[in-house]
Amino acid sequence: MGMTIAEKILAEHAGKEEVKPGEIVMAKLDFVFGNDVTTPLAIKKFKELGVDRVFDPERVGIVLDHFTPNKDIKSAEQCKFSREFAREMGIKWFFEGGNVGVEHCLLPELGLILPGDLVIGADSHTCTHGALGAFATGVGSTDLAVAMATGEAWFRVPETIKFVYEGELQPWVTSKDLILYTIGDIGVNGALYKVMEFSGEVIEKLSVEQRMTMTNMAIEAGAKTGIIEPDKKTLEYVKERAQRDYKVYKSDEDAKYHKVIEYDVSKIEPQVAFPHLPENTVPISKAAKMNIKIDQVFIGSCTNGRYEDLKMAAEILEGQKVAPWVRLIVIPCSPSVYWRALKDGLLEIFLEAGAVIGPPTCGPCLGGHMGVLASGERAVSTTNRNFVGRMGHPKSEVYLASPYVAAASAVLGRIASPEEVVK
Amino acid sequence: MGMTIAEKILAEHAGKEEVKPGEIVMAKLDFVFGNDVTTPLAIKKFKELGVDRVFDPERVGIVLDHFTPNKDIKSAEQCKFSREFAREMGIKWFFEGGNVGVEHCLLPELGLILPGDLVIGADSHTCTHGALGAFATGVGSTDLAVAMATGEAWFRVPETIKFVYEGELQPWVTSKDLILYTIGDIGVNGALYKVMEFSGEVIEKLSVEQRMTMTNMAIEAGAKTGIIEPDKKTLEYVKERAQRDYKVYKSDEDAKYHKVIEYDVSKIEPQVAFPHLPENTVPISKAAKMNIKIDQVFIGSCTNGRYEDLKMAAEILEGQKVAPWVRLIVIPCSPSVYWRALKDGLLEIFLEAGAVIGPPTCGPCLGGHMGVLASGERAVSTTNRNFVGRMGHPKSEVYLASPYVAAASAVLGRIASPEEVVK
Repeated sequence: MGMTIAEKILAEHAGKEEVKPGEIVMAKLDFVFGNDVTTPLAIKKFKELGVDRVFDPERVGIVLDHFTPNKDIKSAEQCKFSREFAREMGIKWFFEGGNVGVEHCLLPELGLILPGDLVIGADSHTCTHGALGAFATGVGSTDLAVAMATGEAWFRVPETIKFVYEGELQPWVTSKDLILYTIGDIGVNGALYKVMEFSGEVIEKLSVEQRMTMTNMAIEAGAKTGIIEPDKKTLEYVKERAQRDYKVYKSDEDAKYHKVIEYDVSKIEPQVAFPHLPENTVPISKAAKMNIKIDQVFIGSCTNGRYEDLKMAAEILEGQKVAPWVRLIVIPCSPSVYWRALKDGLLEIFLEAGAVIGPPTCGPCLGGHMGVLASGERAVSTTNRNFVGRMGHPKSEVYLASPYVAAASAVLGRIASPEEVVK
Repeated sequence: MGMTIAEKILAEHAGKEEVKPGEIVMAKLDFVFGNDVTTPLAIKKFKELGVDRVFDPERVGIVLDHFTPNKDIKSAEQCKFSREFAREMGIKWFFEGGNVGVEHCLLPELGLILPGDLVIGADSHTCTHGALGAFATGVGSTDLAVAMATGEAWFRVPETIKFVYEGELQPWVTSKDLILYTIGDIGVNGALYKVMEFSGEVIEKLSVEQRMTMTNMAIEAGAKTGIIEPDKKTLEYVKERAQRDYKVYKSDEDAKYHKVIEYDVSKIEPQVAFPHLPENTVPISKAAKMNIKIDQVFIGSCTNGRYEDLKMAAEILEGQKVAPWVRLIVIPCSPSVYWRALKDGLLEIFLEAGAVIGPPTCGPCLGGHMGVLASGERAVSTTNRNFVGRMGHPKSEVYLASPYVAAASAVLGRIASPEEVVK
């Protein structure tokens, strides 16, 4: 019987011909990583295991992206602890300072995560990497510790839900809107422990970067991961980046899905996820009429901080000014995105509009620093979560949207449609 | 009898013909300002006074530069409180988001502080503005509160020490080295409650920006303020910036000084102030031989974050790479400096060298955020204070230096002379 791409990757890495949903397998990992929040705890557990080296120093990544440049003494100590471990173990892929970017942007950019890979990362948005046709999922620090030591992890093979997107995308509708719409449709538990396999003619037309925005948010529907079959675009993306060999898997025609959900995207508008859940989606035609005043806009993160995202924001912001009393924070998600945005004039557009540009990190996404919200403040954010207190005070509010909607809202000082700014 | 420039400014603003050191005067203020740390407390005091408006909304500045983009919920609340006050009072010079820069860089750049002004700011480095020939001094939040209400403050007229710099500056010697050398000479209490009047042919040759580096650190010798007589360069600097009229004062030939101290700068090398006091100065020829390994370099702040400072750093960093395991953080001190550094290719040089570029704020200078040090870490910093714990953990160390020395140290990973990098 046929298998899905996710099942095939798990089977191959478990050394089996076939796996079935529900089965528990031990599998070899291609890459494991953590950040400055999760790695220190993993290191402590690692040391408890009594091993003195990582399974392969070329397959472990440590990315100090959450609270850097060090926010406070505590984060400085966490980073120092991770740095010392990286030096001691000779870990090749240690990133901080001028090399750091948001882990889920940086690692694929550098060809460290590839099609067919089995990957765990101690961060919930590890599912992002499924956009390359890898099986990548978030784990806790203890699992990372064991994986760093052994290069293996156990998995319960998940069932897969296939999402098929057909039709013509409407103006200003991005992959962020598709995934918000999908989560709005199935709910934040709609894909619990399932794989979300994104497919259809619309996905084929999306760039790899835009695909990453979709797989990134699979976890927001409760999924184990999101995945997209590699195609020409994928191979082009990895061609000049790949640090090692990789293998392309595709779902069989007769693969068994838990469910198949089809969307006609021609009916989907830009979406805004209202507080305090990503499933609280409202189409922009309705949201823009509600006159929801905002205090801050954040454009960045592992969801929407890539070059194409900044380009979208610039399309709206060019020649415009941020509304009075509104702060616009733009954070390119990696050094190369920052560099390209500088070279191509995007940073100039942002500065002229009155934005603050932060260094390539997670920034305020998780309420860490660089743009934390006060009580009663409202933000439009291109990030992935709008839980209570996610970006600051428990009485602040986060509205999730695409870079287009976020930028338009910054200009008008309220939740706004791109159409209101670009005539 | 003659008066010094400082005495003349105080006399004029107190409505008197003459003042003498030791005398207490009430004087009218030209500009008053605070930041996100000091303003909230001042606002509380202001409200206790029972007044309902500031003395002049065009002469009050609020600059949210210390913990922005908001570091945490507390700083977000502080900023919100300041913002609401600014809106309520119609304060014209409120800066945050894309408009913010380090207060002591931003205000003179925008022509808000001018020659002959009497200015108080609720920040110790308000003395910076003396470089324009203003009498500017730091106060506590209560004084700021009363000044916002009345436009006046009391002063005990300080005695003035005249510092005369003659001779030829040696290669790589900057105004930062002159002021460090001076503080090393007279000690951190060497000018207690005095005015430091900087003069001589060397000062005349310095740009206005470089002069600001010197007056900025007057407080580090305990001074009430630093001051420099306006000259052609000063007038050129203010000509196209001035938001209002101003008046040029100069010290009389027969002005009475507490002391006159003369330096032959041809004997002064680049200086490094070792932990934990700015007076612990060591010439670079000695410091560079001590093989002092470093973890971080910070180039920025109200002392050395201006365009010329970044230009110096770029001179060293062009074509070089930051040493492995060293973080280099560069923070332009204002939006216009950031803009110019972007346009002129300085940001590219920094990025290529492996630096992190932060948005125009105080950054890690005061251990606030964006580069806080862990236990045992060492930083070379172009800032003004290296007290215990200033940039983070009480067991971290800060070495103060010029942008040249800081950049050279970043490249070599230890305290280094510019000569070791640029042959």
